[in-house]
Amino acid sequence: MSEASSIVVPKGFRASGVKAGVKPSGGLDLALIASDVPCSAAGTFTTNRVCAAPVKWCRDIVPTDGVRAIVVNAGNANAATGAQGEANVRRTAESAAALIGCDARQVLIASTGVIGHQLPMEKIEAGLRAAAPALSADAESFRTAAQAILTTDTRTKIVSESRDGWALFGMAKGAAMIGPRMATMLAFLTTDARVSPMTLKSILSESVEESFNCVSVEGHTSTNDTVLLLASGLAGDELSGAGLDRFAATLHDACQTLAQEMAADGEGSTHFIAIDVEGCTDREEARTLARAVADSPLVKTAIHGADPNWGRIVSAAGYAGIPFEENELSLWINGVCVYDHGTPTAFDANALSSNLRANRDVHLRLLFQRGDASIRFWTCDLTAEYVHLNADYTT
Amino acid sequence: MSEASSIVVPKGFRASGVKAGVKPSGGLDLALIASDVPCSAAGTFTTNRVCAAPVKWCRDIVPTDGVRAIVVNAGNANAATGAQGEANVRRTAESAAALIGCDARQVLIASTGVIGHQLPMEKIEAGLRAAAPALSADAESFRTAAQAILTTDTRTKIVSESRDGWALFGMAKGAAMIGPRMATMLAFLTTDARVSPMTLKSILSESVEESFNCVSVEGHTSTNDTVLLLASGLAGDELSGAGLDRFAATLHDACQTLAQEMAADGEGSTHFIAIDVEGCTDREEARTLARAVADSPLVKTAIHGADPNWGRIVSAAGYAGIPFEENELSLWINGVCVYDHGTPTAFDANALSSNLRANRDVHLRLLFQRGDASIRFWTCDLTAEYVHLNADYTT
Repeated sequence: MSEASSIVVPKGFRASGVKAGVKPSGGLDLALIASDVPCSAAGTFTTNRVCAAPVKWCRDIVPTDGVRAIVVNAGNANAATGAQGEANVRRTAESAAALIGCDARQVLIASTGVIGHQLPMEKIEAGLRAAAPALSADAESFRTAAQAILTTDTRTKIVSESRDGWALFGMAKGAAMIGPRMATMLAFLTTDARVSPMTLKSILSESVEESFNCVSVEGHTSTNDTVLLLASGLAGDELSGAGLDRFAATLHDACQTLAQEMAADGEGSTHFIAIDVEGCTDREEARTLARAVADSPLVKTAIHGADPNWGRIVSAAGYAGIPFEENELSLWINGVCVYDHGTPTAFDANALSSNLRANRDVHLRLLFQRGDASIRFWTCDLTAEYVHLNADYTT
Repeated sequence: MSEASSIVVPKGFRASGVKAGVKPSGGLDLALIASDVPCSAAGTFTTNRVCAAPVKWCRDIVPTDGVRAIVVNAGNANAATGAQGEANVRRTAESAAALIGCDARQVLIASTGVIGHQLPMEKIEAGLRAAAPALSADAESFRTAAQAILTTDTRTKIVSESRDGWALFGMAKGAAMIGPRMATMLAFLTTDARVSPMTLKSILSESVEESFNCVSVEGHTSTNDTVLLLASGLAGDELSGAGLDRFAATLHDACQTLAQEMAADGEGSTHFIAIDVEGCTDREEARTLARAVADSPLVKTAIHGADPNWGRIVSAAGYAGIPFEENELSLWINGVCVYDHGTPTAFDANALSSNLRANRDVHLRLLFQRGDASIRFWTCDLTAEYVHLNADYTT
């Protein structure tokens, strides 16, 4: 599933995106997604102990079968904002509910941006008053909404697919503070398939495990990670059996595409890195090893420098906390075996360096001898541009 | 204890440093420390599963009471080098032993530099033949040895102290790949105090816990971390009681000084950051929280940019895996309370930013309400210069 040039909008959904003035840049910063009918809804959220007020709001509501809207603002995370932050989420939901004609608890909220500042509520409410009448089911409105949830992202992240009479649409944001653990960055998916909230929750969790939980930019788990999936059911009868399996597979692909787009759009990145960890005792062990490699600044800077400095990769695996033996490990970089069962190979370092310099895509394969479990994980390199972008974000 | 302008050399030790040609730069890269008499010796080592051949060699020997020498080379880590790497360590020890007049197993070895390349044994052996006749007990020789163990460090890291008739000398290296866990980077300490190997091991482990294990540059635990402590006993009778306590306290201070110097010399760094984590249930909990903050690229880049973006600090604590509640946490930056029991304060962000811009030293204090345990941890900021230095190390 690739980013859609022509977007398929599931039945019953409308969207809009407006400039509410939350972002200092004055760009689009408020997105509204509304459903004509109450939706089945499921979500996964950050495991950060300091979690944003909108995360607490949503976590308290889903899974449910009554959701009518999602409000997303960029430019302010409404995280670490105390009781005032929680009151502001409620007020946002109440304002949106009044405009749409539903209860406040039928409105889900997500925020992204700077941590620790109170939401500018007059701007949010004025933005909602502009966004509600702009709601539309056309593809362009969904594109505008996808743009309004971005922060430092350089491009929108959209997927859509139709199959068996139903459609699935998804949008995401994320370019830094990406290190989801049992959670993820902002992603919103809508479908007109009919699926019960508990089934939705179950298949969403599985998809998130193999997509957003397999991506990292710098390992910093956000306070605001949120994935929401809304199903309007307008496409027909409730899915089950093979039909439900096909929906779950499509959802899985959609989440993987969006997750990969986050890593590929990692702040300042020049390389997109896929890491296969194979031969592990279980999937969590493979994930732990992959994350240690993905989050090592020394691995990320080496790849940025097109330097096949594979010692940094095996040493990162070595401190992951998994009790493997050195001679159990073999490593390939872009198909070239550089470390074979604990011993360096005589590979052509200059050729591999040229290869890394010429290609944006990098593939690392770590093969252990511990079992049959594997994982594919995605990350990006660490550049001076990342430092510049993050040394001057709030002030 | 500050870096000594006049070094005290414990009785019985001689040192030298030479240019063996291992470093491509042609700088000093081989250090030899020899003792006239067999020493009590203890060590702590990396917990990385991919550990260097010299680490395996030393771990097999200490604690012991027969050590006569330490050989250290910079420019090549002899890590992830398989059976050949282990043979090269043995050959290095044998060569040094022949020159000094002892057994190979009385010689400890440490290496630092690039991972995955075999040691250039002809250069190492020629270097040893030059280093042995250059051994001297004068301070200048110890300074030269301290210089020969450096890689990207910008300065030597030396401490020395004398007390109760004994002296303690220590030297260390480390500026990146610093994330010791139950281990540390290269540090070598010598004393003429008389202490048994098992007592030495016990007091060394305690000191390392509160010094080298409380420092991180980018969280990447090295394959080569090694601390060795040699006691010649030439200062007199075996230490015990209050005398031993004073020796342990001096060792503790020496290790803390060397550890702080590593963080202060972090590659490309412009800020030295001390993190106090207080009010925890135990010391390990405090360490886990401190390490999460210290290793967050977003925290490190914010401090580099003199940006009091405290949300990144509390969010890093939030994903450390410790189940605290937001309203248990308060945070101070350079003495200014920015987050009080889960709620943002109305601090002057411009003044705090100016303060961070003007001062190299940064102090973070995170106060929890979980218990009485605390820790002090040290790190540095993340700069574009770190990326430049590490994007082009081997090629």
